[in-house]
Amino acid sequence: MNGEQNAGRPGVGKDRRGGPWRDRVHEVIFGFDTPAGKAFDVSLIILIVLSVIVVILDSLHDVSERYGTQLVVAEWFFTVLFTIEYALRLACVRHPSRYALSFFGLVDLLAIVPTYLSLLFPGTEFLVVIRVLRVLRVFRVLKLGHHIQDANLLTRSLYASRRKIAVFVYVVLTLVVILGSVMYLIEGEENGFTSIPVSIYWTIVTLTTVGYGDLTPGTVLGQTVSAIVMLLGYAIIAVPTGIVTAEMVHVSSGRRDPTSQEPARSCEQCDERGHDVDAVFCKRCGARF
Amino acid sequence: MNGEQNAGRPGVGKDRRGGPWRDRVHEVIFGFDTPAGKAFDVSLIILIVLSVIVVILDSLHDVSERYGTQLVVAEWFFTVLFTIEYALRLACVRHPSRYALSFFGLVDLLAIVPTYLSLLFPGTEFLVVIRVLRVLRVFRVLKLGHHIQDANLLTRSLYASRRKIAVFVYVVLTLVVILGSVMYLIEGEENGFTSIPVSIYWTIVTLTTVGYGDLTPGTVLGQTVSAIVMLLGYAIIAVPTGIVTAEMVHVSSGRRDPTSQEPARSCEQCDERGHDVDAVFCKRCGARF
Amino acid sequence: MNGEQNAGRPGVGKDRRGGPWRDRVHEVIFGFDTPAGKAFDVSLIILIVLSVIVVILDSLHDVSERYGTQLVVAEWFFTVLFTIEYALRLACVRHPSRYALSFFGLVDLLAIVPTYLSLLFPGTEFLVVIRVLRVLRVFRVLKLGHHIQDANLLTRSLYASRRKIAVFVYVVLTLVVILGSVMYLIEGEENGFTSIPVSIYWTIVTLTTVGYGDLTPGTVLGQTVSAIVMLLGYAIIAVPTGIVTAEMVHVSSGRRDPTSQEPARSCEQCDERGHDVDAVFCKRCGARF
Amino acid sequence: MNGEQNAGRPGVGKDRRGGPWRDRVHEVIFGFDTPAGKAFDVSLIILIVLSVIVVILDSLHDVSERYGTQLVVAEWFFTVLFTIEYALRLACVRHPSRYALSFFGLVDLLAIVPTYLSLLFPGTEFLVVIRVLRVLRVFRVLKLGHHIQDANLLTRSLYASRRKIAVFVYVVLTLVVILGSVMYLIEGEENGFTSIPVSIYWTIVTLTTVGYGDLTPGTVLGQTVSAIVMLLGYAIIAVPTGIVTAEMVHVSSGRRDPTSQEPARSCEQCDERGHDVDAVFCKRCGARF
Repeated sequence: MNGEQNAGRPGVGKDRRGGPWRDRVHEVIFGFDTPAGKAFDVSLIILIVLSVIVVILDSLHDVSERYGTQLVVAEWFFTVLFTIEYALRLACVRHPSRYALSFFGLVDLLAIVPTYLSLLFPGTEFLVVIRVLRVLRVFRVLKLGHHIQDANLLTRSLYASRRKIAVFVYVVLTLVVILGSVMYLIEGEENGFTSIPVSIYWTIVTLTTVGYGDLTPGTVLGQTVSAIVMLLGYAIIAVPTGIVTAEMVHVSSGRRDPTSQEPARSCEQCDERGHDVDAVFCKRCGARF
Repeated sequence: MNGEQNAGRPGVGKDRRGGPWRDRVHEVIFGFDTPAGKAFDVSLIILIVLSVIVVILDSLHDVSERYGTQLVVAEWFFTVLFTIEYALRLACVRHPSRYALSFFGLVDLLAIVPTYLSLLFPGTEFLVVIRVLRVLRVFRVLKLGHHIQDANLLTRSLYASRRKIAVFVYVVLTLVVILGSVMYLIEGEENGFTSIPVSIYWTIVTLTTVGYGDLTPGTVLGQTVSAIVMLLGYAIIAVPTGIVTAEMVHVSSGRRDPTSQEPARSCEQCDERGHDVDAVFCKRCGARF
Repeated sequence: MNGEQNAGRPGVGKDRRGGPWRDRVHEVIFGFDTPAGKAFDVSLIILIVLSVIVVILDSLHDVSERYGTQLVVAEWFFTVLFTIEYALRLACVRHPSRYALSFFGLVDLLAIVPTYLSLLFPGTEFLVVIRVLRVLRVFRVLKLGHHIQDANLLTRSLYASRRKIAVFVYVVLTLVVILGSVMYLIEGEENGFTSIPVSIYWTIVTLTTVGYGDLTPGTVLGQTVSAIVMLLGYAIIAVPTGIVTAEMVHVSSGRRDPTSQEPARSCEQCDERGHDVDAVFCKRCGARF
Repeated sequence: MNGEQNAGRPGVGKDRRGGPWRDRVHEVIFGFDTPAGKAFDVSLIILIVLSVIVVILDSLHDVSERYGTQLVVAEWFFTVLFTIEYALRLACVRHPSRYALSFFGLVDLLAIVPTYLSLLFPGTEFLVVIRVLRVLRVFRVLKLGHHIQDANLLTRSLYASRRKIAVFVYVVLTLVVILGSVMYLIEGEENGFTSIPVSIYWTIVTLTTVGYGDLTPGTVLGQTVSAIVMLLGYAIIAVPTGIVTAEMVHVSSGRRDPTSQEPARSCEQCDERGHDVDAVFCKRCGARF
């Protein structure tokens, strides 16, 4: 997928199969640095958003009863457009099968399949969700735009702290299972805690401070344990926040940041990177900068 | 707007159109470093707060029935005062039209218009909200006070992280649309998830850990997905917090910021960077800046 | 108050009025570095906690009906003890009136007054809250212990960020008033938003992600605005967190920290403090360290 | 316990009592760096998770009625396996009694005891929670894996900030007791605030932004106090987050930490401090460490 996108940049896609029209179509559809490419991206985003709005509106009874025909027409209009787009993408990439099996290739396919399937299996509500997945297509366009760097920073921060987050999730899940079982014992069925899964659901509702109130403790002991669960949830939110923030402070502080605007300092002799801004000698080989 | 405020400082507003009384009025109304200017600001804040309290009290049935006349009198009292103030502002600024079209000029106008409009269109509740917008006028005064630097710091932090916040908002909105559609499928109308918009509303209520409890999952699968949504919401709050905090740590440390508008100070002799904002001598070689 | 406490330290309280028994009592009651002083502090904390528990238990109908007499006896037991303690404190400090009017002097007085007042005005529930204020007395003891340094760090961080917090609070209050008025207009009385104060209450419930669910939007527009309020509340929590965290990172990073274990570096020539750990020259006067 | 685990590493457990089969069993059960040890760990985790799922399913009425026999069989299957595992652990460690009394030794015992007890005391629901404690056994395995370092970092951060967290908890508990009593006075029994403990429960529900909605203020004064409690809760969440984050930024930066157990590295030649943990040469003078 990445290779295909690079190919869309001027002067790269020379060894494409087929004629020059393929190059131009590729530049418009996959590229993002020509006026035509930008216009295509913007209109694609608008079409995607509109098509998702149509799906959402269709789920409202009043709307679907009144404007049923119009919605079907709009749905087919978007589907035909997306089908043409999909065909063009397939036609102009170098490795159609690789594109078709890539993440965005599958998302592009899922954007059009449900409408055709609805001809075969009418009334399948399941297809609604697949249609909504079209929102993911917006990321295809965003990926190429100005936001990629910031998205990278976020992703890298989260990736760098993945193990700490995993430890945190293990602890939370263990807490939730144990506290849920305790509450099942304390409250019992007369207060709505009919089983351990329901109690675990309640514990998650409470620990995350969501607090629906569909299940609330009725006994004094249960309320005491609830209070502890709430204070726990209130306090341990500090942990993921601390993990991610510490990582972001780290990453954004300009050390060890290969994506920062200024190139990270690297030693000319040993190519070690990630030196402090104020370093005079390489911390690994001792060479003067 | 900014130009007008600068003009209010002593020794700046010399080439004002009109006579010296204009200068003095301008100094009192727009300035903030003379005793008269300060007194004006304080009394303006008190008047604004009182006028908003009158609007709020007026919405209480008991109060508006009993003290209806008094409230109307108070409303007109504030409106007349604000009208005089608005006229004076218009009279003493150099470019009345520019002031009138500035953000605070419009807010000043909106503070008086609703009361006059209520003569023409009685019983328009819509005007209530416009009257409440008077609270924004407090910021005009605060802008000039001691808080401007701190407000700037906050604004700069938020501005510097605007792209990361945008990426985060995209991801959250996508999550909300997809999860909302999934819950619509799972729970369906018998549990109150009557349409995708309602499901999306529920997803936002849950993801943000608000948790009203007006809509709660009824099926086991729905409760499982809810639990995932809650844990997601509980975890991803770390991301905006991390973004803003990292930026604030960055900004408030005042150093080592390659992306900041102001260039980081570096010593001319030894090129050491990362000096404090208030440093007079290089911390490494002792050279005077 | 602070002076009195210093006086409790060995070798300081020499010029006390009265005999040496006063010194010893003072050392026990106000001091914290003698075995007797520690024992007094610990037993005082236990007594305070027990007395508060008695007040809390007394509010439970079942308990107060069954154990009414015992609770009254316990209450008088604690009151008499606290009265003796108060009298001793008054007797052994150098400036009794200054102690009596200090914050903790008033808290000490409030701990005993309600029980005597209940003789004069039986059945005054208002006295319950005053009795509960006894919990504040625990801080008197903690103030002297190991926690003072950490409490100081917290207080200093909050104090240093007070202006930023004030700006944040202004913005939140403005948001809450405007959004509350908007929701009052949109939802109106038929959905429970009977007045602007009620709407503002709802907005605070939603913005802080508490979400009781006693008031929930009934219209589609109202739900949309609610969703925006929730996402706002979810996002702007990042701001106070960022403010306090940035301040704490700052303070705990060992720069400009007069309470840190290591003394902060200060220039020998100009006494400027707050130099970086790696500074070689004073940043103000350029003197070598 | 730690000693036993070290003994599981190759070449360490030579002076074990008994024959070489003990060494091999020990290596498999306690070790984690041989293929057999890894396979044992993975299958143990799977068994633990399955056994907990069986306990949870058993609490569902539908499931326990239909598949009652199968669940009992599964329960006994897991119990017998865990009993064999426990016996082997006892048999192959050097100090069986020390293992038996260690934290994980007790958890291992608690994993098998309830099933045997259920023969003696049928229908004891209390045993369910003890069975669920098996989830803690997962940590035994995780402790040895890759996550130990990250878990350590989290634990160290929390440990380093334990005093600040304690001060925060004192303040929150004091706030909760006082605000709870105030709300008990204001709202009274007619609005469900039947006693101070219930009011304190409500205050915790509100302050932690859980907000069940089972108890909501009915009076205007109560709603005003609630709004203050909510804003307080919304704001003071910043404090634990700030504490933990500042500590993590501190710990994860690995430098300039005067309070850390490990001394910060300083260059022997130029005394420059604040080198990265992985530095081999001084970043200022280039001297080898």
